[in-house]
Amino acid sequence: MLTGMHIAVIGGDARQLEVIRKLLELDAKISLIGFDQLDHGFTGASKEQIDEVDFSDINAMILPVPGTNGEGQVETIFSNEKVILTEEIIAKTPEDCVIFSGISNSYLDSIVSKNNRKLVKLFERDDVAIYNSIPTVEGTIMMVIQHTDITIHNSKVVVLGLGRVGMSVARTFSALGAKVKVGARKSEHIARITEMGLEPFHLDDLSEIVSDADVCINTIPHLIVTASVISKMPAHTLIVDLASKPGGTDFRYAEKRGIKALLAPGLPGIVAPKTAGQIVANVLSQILLEHHKREEK
Amino acid sequence: MLTGMHIAVIGGDARQLEVIRKLLELDAKISLIGFDQLDHGFTGASKEQIDEVDFSDINAMILPVPGTNGEGQVETIFSNEKVILTEEIIAKTPEDCVIFSGISNSYLDSIVSKNNRKLVKLFERDDVAIYNSIPTVEGTIMMVIQHTDITIHNSKVVVLGLGRVGMSVARTFSALGAKVKVGARKSEHIARITEMGLEPFHLDDLSEIVSDADVCINTIPHLIVTASVISKMPAHTLIVDLASKPGGTDFRYAEKRGIKALLAPGLPGIVAPKTAGQIVANVLSQILLEHHKREEK
Amino acid sequence: MLTGMHIAVIGGDARQLEVIRKLLELDAKISLIGFDQLDHGFTGASKEQIDEVDFSDINAMILPVPGTNGEGQVETIFSNEKVILTEEIIAKTPEDCVIFSGISNSYLDSIVSKNNRKLVKLFERDDVAIYNSIPTVEGTIMMVIQHTDITIHNSKVVVLGLGRVGMSVARTFSALGAKVKVGARKSEHIARITEMGLEPFHLDDLSEIVSDADVCINTIPHLIVTASVISKMPAHTLIVDLASKPGGTDFRYAEKRGIKALLAPGLPGIVAPKTAGQIVANVLSQILLEHHKREEK
Amino acid sequence: MLTGMHIAVIGGDARQLEVIRKLLELDAKISLIGFDQLDHGFTGASKEQIDEVDFSDINAMILPVPGTNGEGQVETIFSNEKVILTEEIIAKTPEDCVIFSGISNSYLDSIVSKNNRKLVKLFERDDVAIYNSIPTVEGTIMMVIQHTDITIHNSKVVVLGLGRVGMSVARTFSALGAKVKVGARKSEHIARITEMGLEPFHLDDLSEIVSDADVCINTIPHLIVTASVISKMPAHTLIVDLASKPGGTDFRYAEKRGIKALLAPGLPGIVAPKTAGQIVANVLSQILLEHHKREEK
Ligand SMILES: NC(=O)c1ccc[n+]([C@@H]2O[C@H](COP(=O)([O-])OP(=O)(O)OC[C@H]3O[C@@H](n4cnc5c(N)ncnc54)[C@H](OP(=O)(O)O)[C@@H]3O)[C@@H](O)[C@H]2O)c1
Ligand SMILES: NC(=O)c1ccc[n+]([C@@H]2O[C@H](COP(=O)([O-])OP(=O)(O)OC[C@H]3O[C@@H](n4cnc5c(N)ncnc54)[C@H](OP(=O)(O)O)[C@@H]3O)[C@@H](O)[C@H]2O)c1
Ligand SMILES: NC(=O)c1ccc[n+]([C@@H]2O[C@H](COP(=O)([O-])OP(=O)(O)OC[C@H]3O[C@@H](n4cnc5c(N)ncnc54)[C@H](OP(=O)(O)O)[C@@H]3O)[C@@H](O)[C@H]2O)c1
Ligand SMILES: NC(=O)c1ccc[n+]([C@@H]2O[C@H](COP(=O)([O-])OP(=O)(O)OC[C@H]3O[C@@H](n4cnc5c(N)ncnc54)[C@H](OP(=O)(O)O)[C@@H]3O)[C@@H](O)[C@H]2O)c1
Repeated sequence: MLTGMHIAVIGGDARQLEVIRKLLELDAKISLIGFDQLDHGFTGASKEQIDEVDFSDINAMILPVPGTNGEGQVETIFSNEKVILTEEIIAKTPEDCVIFSGISNSYLDSIVSKNNRKLVKLFERDDVAIYNSIPTVEGTIMMVIQHTDITIHNSKVVVLGLGRVGMSVARTFSALGAKVKVGARKSEHIARITEMGLEPFHLDDLSEIVSDADVCINTIPHLIVTASVISKMPAHTLIVDLASKPGGTDFRYAEKRGIKALLAPGLPGIVAPKTAGQIVANVLSQILLEHHKREEK
Repeated sequence: MLTGMHIAVIGGDARQLEVIRKLLELDAKISLIGFDQLDHGFTGASKEQIDEVDFSDINAMILPVPGTNGEGQVETIFSNEKVILTEEIIAKTPEDCVIFSGISNSYLDSIVSKNNRKLVKLFERDDVAIYNSIPTVEGTIMMVIQHTDITIHNSKVVVLGLGRVGMSVARTFSALGAKVKVGARKSEHIARITEMGLEPFHLDDLSEIVSDADVCINTIPHLIVTASVISKMPAHTLIVDLASKPGGTDFRYAEKRGIKALLAPGLPGIVAPKTAGQIVANVLSQILLEHHKREEK
Repeated sequence: MLTGMHIAVIGGDARQLEVIRKLLELDAKISLIGFDQLDHGFTGASKEQIDEVDFSDINAMILPVPGTNGEGQVETIFSNEKVILTEEIIAKTPEDCVIFSGISNSYLDSIVSKNNRKLVKLFERDDVAIYNSIPTVEGTIMMVIQHTDITIHNSKVVVLGLGRVGMSVARTFSALGAKVKVGARKSEHIARITEMGLEPFHLDDLSEIVSDADVCINTIPHLIVTASVISKMPAHTLIVDLASKPGGTDFRYAEKRGIKALLAPGLPGIVAPKTAGQIVANVLSQILLEHHKREEK
Repeated sequence: MLTGMHIAVIGGDARQLEVIRKLLELDAKISLIGFDQLDHGFTGASKEQIDEVDFSDINAMILPVPGTNGEGQVETIFSNEKVILTEEIIAKTPEDCVIFSGISNSYLDSIVSKNNRKLVKLFERDDVAIYNSIPTVEGTIMMVIQHTDITIHNSKVVVLGLGRVGMSVARTFSALGAKVKVGARKSEHIARITEMGLEPFHLDDLSEIVSDADVCINTIPHLIVTASVISKMPAHTLIVDLASKPGGTDFRYAEKRGIKALLAPGLPGIVAPKTAGQIVANVLSQILLEHHKREEK
């Protein structure tokens, strides 16, 4: 249990509700900042303004997935107020206060490091990335069904990358009956693709491989679906690029050639906000429980 | 090949384009009725008005999936003209002319049987029903992703019926990582569900089984998801009813209880018109080829 | 429960122990005939000689899988005594006594029908055949691993028949990573094979299909793997014939050509006697429970 | 191609025949040492005695999987002669000669490093370990079928470790219909097990988890199935230990408790020698081709 811990949840969308629910279950004391329009009441959590909070009492601070923007503003779906996280606020927290976000940027990195606090970027953790790959795959399936006039079953699907997302994408499209080829550059990835019963290819051969692709799904955060690769695709190929912005596709050239190419960021929060929230809630509470246990000793 | 065969394709939507393409590949002579606004030209197929066609020369007549409506009108997506199929038209065809539709109704049955012609209802064939189950499943997946805030992976899914559609639904949702229970009444269905690695239950126990369902997918064309069953479901359960109209769900009661229930007819033509067209095209051309071979002898 | 029912279990092997265990759980009264050497004691079951039993009190009689041999002798693994089932014994039973065996022969059919008793041949039931397909498949896997020097994964496997056993064989070898082609003659089987993500072919094309097969698994109880088919196989092909004796393979020709061909009957009792016994026990007790319920009314 | 390369294949079993075949296909010049009793002739490979070979001309030396024994002797299945690999022999080779084995020992390490030659231990490569996991899994399946009286389908299987072998074991037993739980200690392994649709547990909880296990398969090269864990297993549990000698099981205690525990080393060479040979042949030739290309530049 997290009895005795005081946690500030600052901003965010529907996913944070799962986090709040989980932390309350574990008996933490919660201050909600940026939730004034939430009609759903949580017993045990008090809605507060950021300037009312006594940050010297806060053991952990939970920011939404993006952390802050470049000026320190925190996204608040459930409030119209502007919430700004500053160096001064961080300075008020106890020295062992931990700050959580999904990803980070130079502003957030800087205000945290100046104060020597610990920042946990949840989306960089392997476990979170793997759990999140599940709703990401389902979002991809939905997009492919919507944007093609054929079934996934028996279609020719090319997946790029066998990382945390790529393995899940490849496995699932194959389970739906697609003929899946997976491109990688490491020999152990080629071996694992083979073991999974899929057809491996080396990324050097991408141009030949796409020549009969119905769908090409990219997970590599690097320009890999180049103009030259796109020029080898049939006109009906659908490109779904899952890599974080700007993706790994030459979108300008795809449009010029009339190839449909979709950049699809943030799928977990879109297609399964509740599951996406539970993923963060579970990992976060696990970390807090271990932290709390260490504190108590 | 179908060389020497003259086929009238009357009305229909994008699916019929695959049929036309396939028949032309097999060298049939095609008259297109109800396609005047189709900008896509087919070499070897001539667009005609229904009153211009010499039906005495027609060896096969292909209607769209619904056949006709109750007054004999044929749906024409690619034309604004009203196309009516009458007893007189059928009478003009050669005695061994075969008429194809997806399903039928009393009007169509009657004008065909009065003339002693053969009517092939493609959607009643086992093979077509099984092939069509594939796009049906993908449409179901899309709806479930869209209408829930959780992932299919690890969700509790109850499938009703292990017929041609039910088996495909059950297998695929399980492949996506759902915990699937399948309800049936025949002991051999219970055995096959077990062999597939899924959890079987007898339909008599449906009320208990739905008590923790996230999704309930019905394929039984019979009122089975009754008010009494719905009353046992959690508030968040999603019902997707695939059975043909009016489905097997008490939709009135579901709405009253605030349970989301969707009747989802005609998924193949919606989510994968090209595949749906190819399914019809393949089976139809197979039948025509055998018919043609017999004629030649 | 089967309280008040008196059941004679006559002969059989380890599989019958599961049947006895299950019936005792359901509170039946059991007479064991042909079990004198069984050291395992069952409380509630009495070991008897066949001439000591008062058959007028017996509500159900359970024979081993083969029933009797052509002279009425019942196989008894746990006894050296000769147990013969005669017309006279059957005549002593109450009119509604039900007799169970796996399969039957003309002798058994005759002594039962002369007395107008009901004979349930469990192995002819669809549910039992499907449940038994599971250990049959595992036995097949074991044989293929033992008799080839390659892995099943990535091997070319041809399965003949999509019946109760064929569907399970095809699904499982594919799950192990084999490239599976399945041969059938019905168009709905071809459709289901396609839906399962496997490669279908018509049995008429068997000779071409086997030309690169590593393994050929037959489930069709009919001569189908003929000399002509075998002559098209590579020298290293392994044939596993699961069809009941004499199988569907020209074994004489296979031997002549040096192709390894194995007839593999009775796999469930060999590779998983406990599961095989439970399958019979579950279905049998289900039937007895329904029978008992009807009797009571 | 490997034209112009001279390779010495020294000793080994049937697996090496695949290596020889592959290297000949690539046009290498081959000297076979320890193959005098091989009746199978390879055109392009000459059988030689180790003291006849001109090692100054040898570009690569291929030892069997174990390398040598502690005294430098090389296993030769196809010869009765004693073949000893010495420091002197290595010294005669060109400086860029590469030596291949599966694993190594202090003797082999020492004679190679004294001469500053490169030793490639193929079985330590990730790709080889993953490819080899496939026949390892099939060997495990065979053992489980042979040593239990139930089917794998629907049995409770506990897999320890999600490494290169563990992932393949877990996936495949699940594909056979087993209820699979996988134990690991890293949070990203727990996440991947979840994504695979299997039930994860932390190795700290192993004692509770095994309490209803039918089969326990270990891949962790560390004592993990301790007396304390074994004491919690049901009497019928089968332990299959795949970890390299001495395995991760307290075999002494298992025997004392009457729990069947099998140490199963070297499965690939036993159950699928041809595939195992091809795995080595493919990776080895890949490495030689890259080496050769570099040499030529
Ligand atoms: N769209 C969404 O909703 C969503 C959701 C989750 C994640 N993502 C994004 O998806 C991407 C992949 O995430 P992940 O968790 O799978 O990352 P990951 O585990 O690091 O996988 C990335 C893969 O890309 C390969 N790769 C990286 N650079 C490469 C290069 N220059 N050439 C060839 N291959 C290269 C890696 O292979 P090597 O091992 O050979 O480097 C690896 O297989 C990220 O951009 C992530 O932000 C998007
Ligand atoms: N939504 C779409 O896009 C779409 C697409 C294709 C088909 N469909 C519709 O889906 C439905 C199922 O099609 P199908 O091809 O799967 O049909 P099917 O093969 O006949 O299967 C129907 C199943 O329902 C069971 N069933 C029928 N009456 C029952 C009753 N009174 N009580 C319990 N079980 C009963 C049958 O079990 P028994 O064997 O025990 O009778 C069988 O398993 C049809 O209405 C069809 O028109 C819809
Ligand atoms: N070895 C063992 O341990 C073991 C265990 C269980 C069963 N068996 C045996 O395995 C065999 C199959 O059992 P099952 O339960 O799967 O039977 P099943 O359900 O009747 O299947 C038989 C299959 O064979 C096909 N078939 C029958 N006659 C044919 C013919 N003349 N030409 C082409 N196809 C034909 C059927 O297709 P259609 O629908 O087109 O007729 C069907 O797909 C039986 O002989 C059974 O005794 C053996
Ligand atoms: N029987 C055969 O025929 C056969 C064939 C191939 C391989 N093998 C043997 O099988 C074993 C596994 O091979 P592999 O390729 O899978 O190795 P691997 O990829 O290194 O996997 C080993 C697994 O064990 C875990 N592990 C290691 N030490 C641990 C510890 N102290 N506590 C908990 N977990 C621990 C690792 O997890 P972490 O990541 O948490 O460390 C990893 O998941 C080796 O001994 C290998 O020689 C046997």
